[in-house]
Amino acid sequence: MRYDVLTLFPEMFTGVLGSSILKKAEERKLVSYNVIDFRAYSEDKHSRVDDYPYGGGGGMVLTPQPIFDAIEDITKEKSSGKRRIILLCPQGERYTQRKAEELAEFEQLIFICGHYEGYDERIREHLVTDEISIGDYVLTGGELGAMVIIDSVTRLLTGVLGNETSAVTDSFSTGLLEYPHYTRPVDFRGLKVPDVLLSGHHKNIDEWRHQEAIKRTLKRRPDLLKDRELSKREKEWIDTFKDNL
Amino acid sequence: MRYDVLTLFPEMFTGVLGSSILKKAEERKLVSYNVIDFRAYSEDKHSRVDDYPYGGGGGMVLTPQPIFDAIEDITKEKSSGKRRIILLCPQGERYTQRKAEELAEFEQLIFICGHYEGYDERIREHLVTDEISIGDYVLTGGELGAMVIIDSVTRLLTGVLGNETSAVTDSFSTGLLEYPHYTRPVDFRGLKVPDVLLSGHHKNIDEWRHQEAIKRTLKRRPDLLKDRELSKREKEWIDTFKDNL
Repeated sequence: MRYDVLTLFPEMFTGVLGSSILKKAEERKLVSYNVIDFRAYSEDKHSRVDDYPYGGGGGMVLTPQPIFDAIEDITKEKSSGKRRIILLCPQGERYTQRKAEELAEFEQLIFICGHYEGYDERIREHLVTDEISIGDYVLTGGELGAMVIIDSVTRLLTGVLGNETSAVTDSFSTGLLEYPHYTRPVDFRGLKVPDVLLSGHHKNIDEWRHQEAIKRTLKRRPDLLKDRELSKREKEWIDTFKDNL
Repeated sequence: MRYDVLTLFPEMFTGVLGSSILKKAEERKLVSYNVIDFRAYSEDKHSRVDDYPYGGGGGMVLTPQPIFDAIEDITKEKSSGKRRIILLCPQGERYTQRKAEELAEFEQLIFICGHYEGYDERIREHLVTDEISIGDYVLTGGELGAMVIIDSVTRLLTGVLGNETSAVTDSFSTGLLEYPHYTRPVDFRGLKVPDVLLSGHHKNIDEWRHQEAIKRTLKRRPDLLKDRELSKREKEWIDTFKDNL
């Protein structure tokens, strides 16, 4: 996977792309990162990349020229079928794990990160393939959104996650929130590990965990249960639990 | 506002906290950042911070001791009423702009960032005040979530945003997605700015923008319209637009 990021703040990416799994994935040549300051593509004599909005109003708007030219430059070698050009913006499609899985199938992901400014509408309409929002909150720029997508997609790529991590038992892949975890000590300042986890009785442990996952999902994210096919046993548990949360 | 971040990857934060608005807010002493490697608090002779889960299963679990001790250390001077202790996790409450506004009222926000590992349940139950998820996708750790919250909260603090940015016209504060923006040139490779924006007729421009905001919201995020009180005019527009998107 090749990631290209267009930003006015390339230094924001150093720490995140240079740590942990994202660093290891690059070292093992499973991904490459190309962070570009698109100001370098501006044809304006003062290297400006934004201008006042037509029709008046506050704020500045990113002009089309530097962004169109930067994208043309970094896409000239590859066929368009294998890449996505992603605009991070609050108006975009809400990002989900399903979208991460979809993006992980491409060969090149290009991110356009505005910062404070709006985007000229022609960038949206004639250049980008996907507009994405990582959530219903206002961020200063698209950079954190690009990092979120890079992290969530990279960990789905073949060969990235070792044995120390398990993508399979993650939330959202089972459709339930995770059950509670406990580790040593058995008694921490008087707070104890549930007896069942110390029993060595695997069937009981599995059942307890399954029930706790259902309880937690029912309490915190009942919407997830609607999207999931429930077994007969799960339905019975839900009937029992739902009045006692 | 004081931010404390407990992480095993402190170097991840350098770029984001050291750029743009987050850097300026610190320079102007409106916020302070204290990023802590909580491994330093481990009493284990090998400085371990995680261990195998009771009851078996894959993955590792963060032990309570280093995290409890780190939090006690950084909270000993302040009263608990003015701070929140936030766990980033997929099981948490979904983060929204409303939550950002709520958190911006506190004096100290402490973030606990796991990485790969689960959290011992006693951390959740007896230490943290808020469990937050920034979205329905799987990330390698809580670090990006902490950065997202720090960014979205900081820009709400008095004195942080200058005149170059306007928090008021942002999406989610009006309840509608933003209308399209255009800037120079009027004709970019044959793609033109809508005539109305060049007309100088402010009433027409305002109406066009208002209609476009309604159209975009209707098309992309109809759920936002349900939560919003609509004017008579807006309702009429929606009836007109809804069959022609």
